Amino acid sequence: MQTHLNYPVLMTMEQSKRAHLINSVGGFKSVCLIGTADNLGNTNLAIFSSIVHIGANPPLICFIMRPDSVERHTLSNILETGVYTINHINKNIYRQAHQTSARYPKNISEFDAVGLAKEYKNDFKAPFVKESVIQLAINFKERIDLTINNTIMVIGEINQLYFPEDCLCEDGYLDIEKAGTISCTGLDSYHTTQRLQRLNYAKP
Amino acid sequence: MQTHLNYPVLMTMEQSKRAHLINSVGGFKSVCLIGTADNLGNTNLAIFSSIVHIGANPPLICFIMRPDSVERHTLSNILETGVYTINHINKNIYRQAHQTSARYPKNISEFDAVGLAKEYKNDFKAPFVKESVIQLAINFKERIDLTINNTIMVIGEINQLYFPEDCLCEDGYLDIEKAGTISCTGLDSYHTTQRLQRLNYAKP
Repeated sequence: MQTHLNYPVLMTMEQSKRAHLINSVGGFKSVCLIGTADNLGNTNLAIFSSIVHIGANPPLICFIMRPDSVERHTLSNILETGVYTINHINKNIYRQAHQTSARYPKNISEFDAVGLAKEYKNDFKAPFVKESVIQLAINFKERIDLTINNTIMVIGEINQLYFPEDCLCEDGYLDIEKAGTISCTGLDSYHTTQRLQRLNYAKP
Repeated sequence: MQTHLNYPVLMTMEQSKRAHLINSVGGFKSVCLIGTADNLGNTNLAIFSSIVHIGANPPLICFIMRPDSVERHTLSNILETGVYTINHINKNIYRQAHQTSARYPKNISEFDAVGLAKEYKNDFKAPFVKESVIQLAINFKERIDLTINNTIMVIGEINQLYFPEDCLCEDGYLDIEKAGTISCTGLDSYHTTQRLQRLNYAKP
């Protein structure tokens, strides 16, 4: 049985209820850990579910952040160093990944607090999550302030891409399901996936 | 066995291969049908996999579009009428949904071409997809041109929200898995999901 809610009703909902609902209605989401460090090497790790591809040539990816959230350490580190990592989440680490959303003080690294291992490689200055099997090294490109609700869009370019060799298909498609990457909905629900099908390029 | 590619290698890849790869690396994606009409009532339907929640108060949602794609009919209709619908995709309609990405001429409605039914309700001027069980009526709010790669970010506000009554949880979470909503990866792969767990609000 379908029901509906309209804007005035949505706006009178209790705040946390509306947050759960509106975070659910956009569909399944990418959920990743963003790793950063400040210039002194203090590390930070935060979970984001607003990561979106915005173009392949050059390879650009963005995410949206609230300015007043715990994730602000992520933003200040990105602006300070110009680099960050995006790390896919699998079913072995989703509980730790979720725990990074707790409000730890700036001097506490979420890597240590939640029990995930830092990994540094190929001279990239930001830390990867060792337990993650698909990892992206990103160069910060642009910050766009969304004045409509004071959120911030952060755009970066893929500098390095790490993935399991046997997950890359002949045509360039990367099988992230085979790699064990999971998805999320709302603020707190995590999901594995099951492929229905890959379809051909559509022609009229 | 983990392998890696870096920026110079990515940039020398064959274009369609890079498109498949870079569209895959951001994680699982929301995939929805956006329904529009022009002022004469000519309808358009297009599939998008770049839909992201950007805030709950007010309820805002955005998507990214390439300016040169078939989806340009979507943008011109949105700018003309100020309204559009976002319709979740389930396993009964993902093939038709994918087919809307073919380059149909402006005078052909993808609703008719792919065999999905238009639905109008509550005086909203844009058409919903009848076969979709979660449907959003959106008022256009803002267009942001991303000069970095000439894509366009379209921001809208949720005006009406339709969903199966038994999918709304007490705390406001909408169980879109129970509603049959699916996810996608890359340019052409569709996935059902299986919940691992909902987790509690994280505290240090």
